[in-house]
Amino acid sequence: MAIITIVGSGMMGSALAFPARENGHEVRIVGTHLDREIINECIKTNKHPKFDRPFPNGVKFYQIEEVEKALLGANVVIGGVSSFGVQWFSDEILPIIPESSIVLTVTKGLMNTPDGKLLTYPELWKNKLKSINKTLSLNAIGGPCTSYELVAHDQTEVAFCGDNINVLKYLKELMQTDYYHISTTTDVVGIESAVALKNGYALGIALTIGLNQKNFCDDTLHFNSQAAVFGQATKEMYKLLKFQNALSLNNLCVGVGDLYVTVYGGRTRLVGILLGKGLNIDEAKEELKGVTLESLVVAERVAKAIKYNIEKGTVDKKDFPLLLHIDEILSEKKAVNIPWESFTFTD
Amino acid sequence: MAIITIVGSGMMGSALAFPARENGHEVRIVGTHLDREIINECIKTNKHPKFDRPFPNGVKFYQIEEVEKALLGANVVIGGVSSFGVQWFSDEILPIIPESSIVLTVTKGLMNTPDGKLLTYPELWKNKLKSINKTLSLNAIGGPCTSYELVAHDQTEVAFCGDNINVLKYLKELMQTDYYHISTTTDVVGIESAVALKNGYALGIALTIGLNQKNFCDDTLHFNSQAAVFGQATKEMYKLLKFQNALSLNNLCVGVGDLYVTVYGGRTRLVGILLGKGLNIDEAKEELKGVTLESLVVAERVAKAIKYNIEKGTVDKKDFPLLLHIDEILSEKKAVNIPWESFTFTD
Repeated sequence: MAIITIVGSGMMGSALAFPARENGHEVRIVGTHLDREIINECIKTNKHPKFDRPFPNGVKFYQIEEVEKALLGANVVIGGVSSFGVQWFSDEILPIIPESSIVLTVTKGLMNTPDGKLLTYPELWKNKLKSINKTLSLNAIGGPCTSYELVAHDQTEVAFCGDNINVLKYLKELMQTDYYHISTTTDVVGIESAVALKNGYALGIALTIGLNQKNFCDDTLHFNSQAAVFGQATKEMYKLLKFQNALSLNNLCVGVGDLYVTVYGGRTRLVGILLGKGLNIDEAKEELKGVTLESLVVAERVAKAIKYNIEKGTVDKKDFPLLLHIDEILSEKKAVNIPWESFTFTD
Repeated sequence: MAIITIVGSGMMGSALAFPARENGHEVRIVGTHLDREIINECIKTNKHPKFDRPFPNGVKFYQIEEVEKALLGANVVIGGVSSFGVQWFSDEILPIIPESSIVLTVTKGLMNTPDGKLLTYPELWKNKLKSINKTLSLNAIGGPCTSYELVAHDQTEVAFCGDNINVLKYLKELMQTDYYHISTTTDVVGIESAVALKNGYALGIALTIGLNQKNFCDDTLHFNSQAAVFGQATKEMYKLLKFQNALSLNNLCVGVGDLYVTVYGGRTRLVGILLGKGLNIDEAKEELKGVTLESLVVAERVAKAIKYNIEKGTVDKKDFPLLLHIDEILSEKKAVNIPWESFTFTD
């Protein structure tokens, strides 16, 4: 039995309490300062307000003030914050995690640098650890997994990545169940890039749903146009993985699976449909007030890095017509006008 | 203006009358001997019984007895038969097509040979032409396109493949519209393999829908498990393209797009859901009586070729856990038991 502490009681972090606790581990969930109400409700009802079933018996809940207590003796610390909490996790949590703990993060995303690079969150955190002269094993989870379906025990395939294959094997042993299946790989950049890159592309597919609702004045789903964008998205993700020096079939397929699930995954889909219907990005955000739009942030970061490299001549803009159009919509508030013909090829 | 004759008045062949006629060409649709009622209705109403809108004005309809009249002067002959009509098309139609006509087929599939090879229909037809000492330009259409959505003018991306890039350019010019976008490639084996391989895999994804309906006793769609199979399917399609000596990013992405659309494409989905719910293949076929199940035939053919090569030691069975399980379900009537853990990797 291990002690597994989950920091951040958002849906994804909290969902991991299910396989962890079902496997008999001591599971402690710590809310961030934004999660106070969630933790209160969990303590009262043993149920996350966003889930439709209670946690397995015995999960322990902590407010942020008790975080050090929750970290005490933890074998594994799961980072369950959103992209917007990455800096906070770095500043407030990394310094207080015991060096004997293994860190496993579920936050998906990339950070762009001024010189056109895209860094994974583990890379960012490594820099932080170096600056405070600390060593921690940093690992991450990628792959197609929506939290509420994990809670429902839908069959799920994910990938754990990190520097040390033995640590990954240990993490797999702790977390795997008959519905939660775990690949392990030391290609951190590959997995983290694959699952971050799908963000903008899921939005692209959702655009076609909104476009069709507008053009055909009904709610019929049309799949030809979704599939056209899906094929193009796969192509551009392949090229982005190459750009990241992280191209492998396994990485591509983790990304493609993650893209598939994200098309149906709620928030990104909603924004895409609104944009496709003709709202600009400000109007869409207004309509979805209060919703966290990590996908948009990550898509804009990826586009920034790519545009920097197009400028420098190291990337060909013809390779990314979909990404660049999505970026125009997001960062220049342009109207949706998918460049269909640019997706065709001759060879 | 060109003369375009479509042989076979199934949904896909007939749908191509829309871009063709809208571009101002003379369009002639010839029913096979199985299509008599369809042609009668088209003549009476100018509407295909399966479509929800009429053909553009001026499309001409012919019964099979008038096929030679319909072929007279045709610049392009579109083969619109199903996989089950491939032999008939070869025996009855190829011999009477004028040598000045260009053939363009929409039939998706592969034929397996006793020595474990998978041949495209254009390859089969080439052998036939050789035997009757005839030359014809044989071209084919692949890519994600459901007929009723093409009829609805949903944005659609397909690939035309054939031996001669100039012929392909001509065909593209004739057929492209502002909603029908055409890639062109001389990699016939690549495109035809990519779009045939997705058949079994779409069934595999649909299995998870049925499994979940059974396990969770509701109609909620769960996407984690669909995405898990989608990712694995992409991986196996990549390896099958390699097996076909036809691996390219363009081919893979055409196949992935086609897989995406086929998951939602009606018949394959229905069978997969029934199998996932626990029916065996005979019971599922019984339930869907009268429905053409091309996808199953093609999946079994692909599996046969792969099993032959596993036996011979030229293919590793660990590369195809999903295909082999689908084959067990189809050809040995085994119960659905998706080998989730075999989809994981370590690297």
